[in-house]
Amino acid sequence: MRITLLTDFGTADGYVAAMKGAIAEISPSTLIDDASHAIPPGDIVGAALALKRYWKLYPEGTVHVVVVDPGVGSERRALAINADGRCLVGPDNGVFTFVLKTASDAKVIEIDAELVTKPSSRTFHGRDIFAPAAAQLAAGVSVDRLGRVITDPVAIPMPPPIATEASVRGEVVQIDRFGNLVSNIGAELLRPGYVARVAEREMPVVATYADAAVGELIALINSDNLVEIAVRDGSAAIVLDAQRGAAVELWKR
Amino acid sequence: MRITLLTDFGTADGYVAAMKGAIAEISPSTLIDDASHAIPPGDIVGAALALKRYWKLYPEGTVHVVVVDPGVGSERRALAINADGRCLVGPDNGVFTFVLKTASDAKVIEIDAELVTKPSSRTFHGRDIFAPAAAQLAAGVSVDRLGRVITDPVAIPMPPPIATEASVRGEVVQIDRFGNLVSNIGAELLRPGYVARVAEREMPVVATYADAAVGELIALINSDNLVEIAVRDGSAAIVLDAQRGAAVELWKR
Amino acid sequence: MRITLLTDFGTADGYVAAMKGAIAEISPSTLIDDASHAIPPGDIVGAALALKRYWKLYPEGTVHVVVVDPGVGSERRALAINADGRCLVGPDNGVFTFVLKTASDAKVIEIDAELVTKPSSRTFHGRDIFAPAAAQLAAGVSVDRLGRVITDPVAIPMPPPIATEASVRGEVVQIDRFGNLVSNIGAELLRPGYVARVAEREMPVVATYADAAVGELIALINSDNLVEIAVRDGSAAIVLDAQRGAAVELWKR
Repeated sequence: MRITLLTDFGTADGYVAAMKGAIAEISPSTLIDDASHAIPPGDIVGAALALKRYWKLYPEGTVHVVVVDPGVGSERRALAINADGRCLVGPDNGVFTFVLKTASDAKVIEIDAELVTKPSSRTFHGRDIFAPAAAQLAAGVSVDRLGRVITDPVAIPMPPPIATEASVRGEVVQIDRFGNLVSNIGAELLRPGYVARVAEREMPVVATYADAAVGELIALINSDNLVEIAVRDGSAAIVLDAQRGAAVELWKR
Repeated sequence: MRITLLTDFGTADGYVAAMKGAIAEISPSTLIDDASHAIPPGDIVGAALALKRYWKLYPEGTVHVVVVDPGVGSERRALAINADGRCLVGPDNGVFTFVLKTASDAKVIEIDAELVTKPSSRTFHGRDIFAPAAAQLAAGVSVDRLGRVITDPVAIPMPPPIATEASVRGEVVQIDRFGNLVSNIGAELLRPGYVARVAEREMPVVATYADAAVGELIALINSDNLVEIAVRDGSAAIVLDAQRGAAVELWKR
Repeated sequence: MRITLLTDFGTADGYVAAMKGAIAEISPSTLIDDASHAIPPGDIVGAALALKRYWKLYPEGTVHVVVVDPGVGSERRALAINADGRCLVGPDNGVFTFVLKTASDAKVIEIDAELVTKPSSRTFHGRDIFAPAAAQLAAGVSVDRLGRVITDPVAIPMPPPIATEASVRGEVVQIDRFGNLVSNIGAELLRPGYVARVAEREMPVVATYADAAVGELIALINSDNLVEIAVRDGSAAIVLDAQRGAAVELWKR
């Protein structure tokens, strides 16, 4: 049994360890992997994109917990999902957008808090709802046992890239630690002869970093099969002063 | 067997991994959970408050290691504690203040370094004393076996809030990652009709975040049953420019 | 079975969790310890020095993965090493310099990617080569099975300190989180009566921190048996405005 945790809590306040303790109390031998606790506070899109990178690489039976939840305490629903044999637990605010878009088979349950936690006037959802729900799922409980099926989970609106015969227009969806700009343009939209443009700078599309000179601005297909803007041994985010949402264009020159 | 680690080491220097290796060498199948390594250097109060959040949520038999130890190398004692069935290991500098204040039953041992480590002229206490002590406790050794009982562990001086019939005066004891100001005022001191004041700003006491408008400054009871000052979808620490120790007042207007 | 991970990825992008998932998929019960993901981007020397602190403290059979790899995608080799019974996996760029310098016995293998991963045009080496190689080694596969022996792994050029009869001249090789300056001067080069000089400031060589006044600049032997420059309850890096590479001199005054 293995549970992963993805939050925007940082670790220094002890909230993450409280979640781990609540899991260990219910399911003492469960392995707990930190995915990250460094998601920027409230960054639902960032959490959804990080989760997209790993949820299905873990084996079936793994439980992924996500608590990036700016609306805690308000009336948003708590979800438990079985997607292609992995379970996921977290708030219904869009963090599972890419899981639900890419899973072959998914069942989404609205967690009934009374089925997973003792009644309490004060609730830290990570510790009191999501952690015990995850521990129960890791112990083999079916998602159906935690509440009722819903069919309308919240999804982050994600406009797809627009492709014409001779061009594609997408946007930067993630900026990683190395300053690489990850776009929403899939490798299948790239055609021979395309060049890329971001922030009024034009750059070649190359096969690998090794094809670029140090400091050169390039576009390439990354390990998630998406078009990415990079600077060899540098930061494209700094060179281009680009933010999430910046336009990424490909066309035949 | 599960051991948690709380330090101010950061991770990049390899000191934390050295502690993990020393544990794994003695007790190879022990699960090691990171509580945090991002406690600000030397922040004993911060470590004590983080530990307070999780130590008792873990099941009995868990060993919690705390190494926030600005006095390393000086003559402070090393402690092993059994509190309500959980074991704790770390320096005698106040990090266990809240554990010892809230445990129903606690035995405090001064670790005799010769019982847990090989003699060495140069000692990294985390690696050479606390890690092996924790590994032995996780393996079932009783705290009594690591040294002699003491009755005067160091406690952080923590003035309690002052409550009169119509008011309470406490202070900010922790500022979390979201900029929430956690006070030392317990929920039981709050009376109907109270309003709160911090840094010359007055704010209502509400039941949940959902009762506040975005950007509104509020006081509420947090998940640890303490009065907390918050800004919905914002940072009270920034809005109020408040530090740890700032006065928090409640009274009937 | 236990695998440790050391990277410069940060955690927020999900790349680290992708590596963990790839390991868990192959070897579900393996314990995964985070060594660090906070190595500064591309800092091979920093990674090598951190690794030096813990690789041999872990028991035999442990697999240490290091992915600090500014040259990813270029033609550098991927290595699997058996050193004194511990296995190590990572790029051939110098990160294993100190392991290979200090191991009694080491075998270095160039990983044949086809033996550990499915063919793929787009490769994230951490996820697609190093993680599966580590999982196989943790499951008991011998390093020999992953490729062919090589005898010329890349080593970081590390000039040794220069010792004369009455002086030693070395340099700062690492600055830790507390601002301590770790030099490349081993304890065996220190003679009675020596004083130290860094950045035109002279300081005494003391036995422990406790021998210094608060704020005093000192030199001492650290827990790795190296000469270290420190400020009691302060940061030598800030006081001296020193960088990695700064000269450290010891001599009899």
